[in-house]
Amino acid sequence: MKGIAASPGIVIGKVLILNKEKSDVKIETISKDRIKDEIEKLHNAVEKAKKEIKIIKDNIGKEIGEERAKIFDAHIMMLNDPELISAFESKIREGKCSAPAAVKQVIEQYAEMFDNMEDEYLKMRGADIKDIGKRVINILLGNKELPDALDKEVIIVAEELSPSSIAQLDTKKVLAFVTKDGSRTSHASIIARSLGIPAVVGLGEVLLDKVQNNSLLIVDGNSGEVYLNPDKDILEIYKQKIIEYKTELERLAVYSNKKAKTKDGIAIEVVGNIGDIDDLEAVLVNGGEGIGLFRTEFLYMNRAEIPSEEEQFEVYKKVAEKMEKNRVVIRTLDIGADKEVPYLDLPKEMNPFLGYRGIRLCLDKTDIFKSQLRAILRASKFGNLSVMFPMISSLDEVKQAKNIFNEVKMELDNESLEYNENIEIGIMVETPAAVMIADNLAEEVDFFSIGTNDLIQYTLAVDRTNKKIADLYSAYHPAILRLIKKIIDEGHKAGIWVGMCGEAAGDELLLPFLLGAGLDEFSMSALSIPKIKESLEKWSKKDAEKEMENILQLKTTREVKNYLQKAKR
Amino acid sequence: MKGIAASPGIVIGKVLILNKEKSDVKIETISKDRIKDEIEKLHNAVEKAKKEIKIIKDNIGKEIGEERAKIFDAHIMMLNDPELISAFESKIREGKCSAPAAVKQVIEQYAEMFDNMEDEYLKMRGADIKDIGKRVINILLGNKELPDALDKEVIIVAEELSPSSIAQLDTKKVLAFVTKDGSRTSHASIIARSLGIPAVVGLGEVLLDKVQNNSLLIVDGNSGEVYLNPDKDILEIYKQKIIEYKTELERLAVYSNKKAKTKDGIAIEVVGNIGDIDDLEAVLVNGGEGIGLFRTEFLYMNRAEIPSEEEQFEVYKKVAEKMEKNRVVIRTLDIGADKEVPYLDLPKEMNPFLGYRGIRLCLDKTDIFKSQLRAILRASKFGNLSVMFPMISSLDEVKQAKNIFNEVKMELDNESLEYNENIEIGIMVETPAAVMIADNLAEEVDFFSIGTNDLIQYTLAVDRTNKKIADLYSAYHPAILRLIKKIIDEGHKAGIWVGMCGEAAGDELLLPFLLGAGLDEFSMSALSIPKIKESLEKWSKKDAEKEMENILQLKTTREVKNYLQKAKR
Repeated sequence: MKGIAASPGIVIGKVLILNKEKSDVKIETISKDRIKDEIEKLHNAVEKAKKEIKIIKDNIGKEIGEERAKIFDAHIMMLNDPELISAFESKIREGKCSAPAAVKQVIEQYAEMFDNMEDEYLKMRGADIKDIGKRVINILLGNKELPDALDKEVIIVAEELSPSSIAQLDTKKVLAFVTKDGSRTSHASIIARSLGIPAVVGLGEVLLDKVQNNSLLIVDGNSGEVYLNPDKDILEIYKQKIIEYKTELERLAVYSNKKAKTKDGIAIEVVGNIGDIDDLEAVLVNGGEGIGLFRTEFLYMNRAEIPSEEEQFEVYKKVAEKMEKNRVVIRTLDIGADKEVPYLDLPKEMNPFLGYRGIRLCLDKTDIFKSQLRAILRASKFGNLSVMFPMISSLDEVKQAKNIFNEVKMELDNESLEYNENIEIGIMVETPAAVMIADNLAEEVDFFSIGTNDLIQYTLAVDRTNKKIADLYSAYHPAILRLIKKIIDEGHKAGIWVGMCGEAAGDELLLPFLLGAGLDEFSMSALSIPKIKESLEKWSKKDAEKEMENILQLKTTREVKNYLQKAKR
Repeated sequence: MKGIAASPGIVIGKVLILNKEKSDVKIETISKDRIKDEIEKLHNAVEKAKKEIKIIKDNIGKEIGEERAKIFDAHIMMLNDPELISAFESKIREGKCSAPAAVKQVIEQYAEMFDNMEDEYLKMRGADIKDIGKRVINILLGNKELPDALDKEVIIVAEELSPSSIAQLDTKKVLAFVTKDGSRTSHASIIARSLGIPAVVGLGEVLLDKVQNNSLLIVDGNSGEVYLNPDKDILEIYKQKIIEYKTELERLAVYSNKKAKTKDGIAIEVVGNIGDIDDLEAVLVNGGEGIGLFRTEFLYMNRAEIPSEEEQFEVYKKVAEKMEKNRVVIRTLDIGADKEVPYLDLPKEMNPFLGYRGIRLCLDKTDIFKSQLRAILRASKFGNLSVMFPMISSLDEVKQAKNIFNEVKMELDNESLEYNENIEIGIMVETPAAVMIADNLAEEVDFFSIGTNDLIQYTLAVDRTNKKIADLYSAYHPAILRLIKKIIDEGHKAGIWVGMCGEAAGDELLLPFLLGAGLDEFSMSALSIPKIKESLEKWSKKDAEKEMENILQLKTTREVKNYLQKAKR
């Protein structure tokens, strides 16, 4: 069976299937005089559910990080929503049914509504509402949702895992999670990664049709492969794989405390990309020497209102303090019509990737932009923060953004609030336009960071999320390599440093090219850091330069890929 | 009042309002024994309507071109549709109503369905069905839809104009068309342009609320402005404008027979873009010396089935013959998920401009591609045809397309079918990737044609149809100018000619830059040709080169625009 690799690691073990929705609620008409009782029961159950969730949140917060535990705040918020509660009540009254029956019906109605939405965020809201509904019903019926304790190590198999089910499990005994539904970005996947437990999700109907309690399973969270009752040969192969994987992890472990250096001893910055504050730990554990890209979208998403300056300040300050003297590049809000952000009220666009987003939105909604810049500046005196603007396509945009930045500094001066006056300003170079005018842009900023993901999309005119043309999307395209070389050259000509925070920076194969082209900083997801550090040690600057020259002569993506594979050390 | 400028020209005149839907059909229950009679009446009216439409088609075909007169084939097809007729019959039978009442109700139902669709093409089908419904009802009621003859020159004002209403008017007496509904691409607008009658459409409710028969109106089909009962001052201004406009047209008229040359006598190709075969005439009248872009999408759209090789061959042959020795560049199918093409079954895409389109689709659906290439090759011996591939983003694509082209040639050889063996092959350069590898691409083809419209979109990451960021879209962006210069340089280095068929080629302001950069061919909409020829005569190659060098030093879109405005001769 093949699913989505949601959390890395390989294990072999016995299955424990989490009971499917046990709450077989009978929907019967009740007598009028029971209505009052049922409503009271409902209220008690809701209150109890809130308390349970609060406890789960506090417990799991320690394991997976506070930011992520906020999922449970959303659950409590829902249970505090008077509209939902009155929907339950009306159902009891008008439907003349018991409290559990009312909750079941209302929740199903809500969940169906969310499920039918296309937006990933709203779909997740549907999972949340089912989660709280199940909890309230279980309380009403006196059901126990989960086994009290696991008596041995097991692989948990389920339809879908709610964050609260995971939170209540004794995760030390969980070898892996395997689910029918879910995606890489669903709550459960995120939590599995935080806990370091391998997970494969989205396996489809086949999973629950075939797998039984105590079945033997191989779960490969690196590839997404799952084997049910594997034969001897496969078991042998996987036992070997587990050993190799562990050996590799151990070999790479040394790099968590080793500075990144080339074979000839040149120090190179190898740093991490983070999506929220809870990612920091992984970067540090894997030996990241700083943060090359701190995406700040998480602060703005999955919520009803814009985050306050104070809330942002607290987050930026925490990151700054934790990273101490190491640089943290904070990218200002990069959001557009491909995301659902209720309070921004973004119009639907035919081509959101070519639309109103990133710096375009920030220069238009300056209140939002200013509040973020204020928060970053105020946090800047607690560590080594830089600020970076996304989606730059003209010199005017950089100048406007800098003007606003200076206005904000003056405001802070007037309010006698402190900040680092020498804070560095950089831009993402991710539109072909920015590359073509990189000479002019370089005069205005302290650094460039190459955003390969978008640069590839625009240069090749290929939406990377479009499966139909997925084979056209590649960082190895000669046009992309020439653009990367040009960005680095123009940056160095102007005397500024050039980094890369797109996925290409964590690609071992591309390393000799990027090193040879003179890239100063490689920023990537935490898990890639040790491998890239190891690769760097195999290349001298000079050798890499030679390879880079050769690679630039190649004419097609395939030729480049073949060359890089042969050149790999 | 301000509407959409749908056909150029300025006139002052008196209004004739075309009667709004006169068919006040009473919906009454009829007795059972009348049903048979009504069904017979219906059939007779439908047959009569088909005959009328056939006559209109033949008459108007001479005026507006055969290709466009095909609209009426669609009407006849609809009236031949057994489903529609049986819907009429069922209504008479089950609704117990008269034939006109049945037609009215069925048509309204269909029209509402089409009106609610987002697709421009299906919306047009809605207008078509209303048009035929009105005709059948008028026949049934013995109504006359239009005045038999116009006794004086008038400005026709109407809610919406169906092609058949226009066709039945004595268009020699029509000064202009002004309508409440409609867009630049609606049938009526296209026909107005073909007839050379000024038109402003989409004025909204205000039009019919205010305008009365015999009102005095100024209609400016160049700007979309319409003045009702203008005062003396405005009248004077517009009388002057009409004189100036006529003078300009006369001044430019000389260029229809004059070769395009620079001030210092260098011949430059100034040619036309056409969207279908009926556009040819306008290019010839305006002095186009060839066709730099023949978009072939019209052959594939607004129909239920793929066009046959034979049908395409006939069209290409006609164009080749008409243009004689002058070059006609035929662009192969450039279609994607932003268009509705039922038989291609294109999946909905999040970002269709970055999707499965142009050469990507053709290399995937090789049957379609081969049939088009066969048609082009077979037509090539009747004139001077070239073939051009759109949306190229890699060397592989060019090689694959050429391989298929060669296969097709071999097929024709085997079938002993003749073609021009030396037919030129070119590509659109419209992705940033193609520019970055232009040196490699130039080795494979005979010419480049710069597609500025898409090149701007991808380079700046700006969807040109997105109103929210419309101000970011500009050919004057320094990045675009540098890319254009690079394309021309790389082309010339490889010894091939370089043209441009995006809208920028018809922009007077950009002319010194493009001439200075060495552009060999300017291809544009027919109406721009005389003006560009005139401008060319004012610039020597040397002066233009100097300007080009200066312009390349500028750093922002605004600076470029200001400079070009000052430099204009």
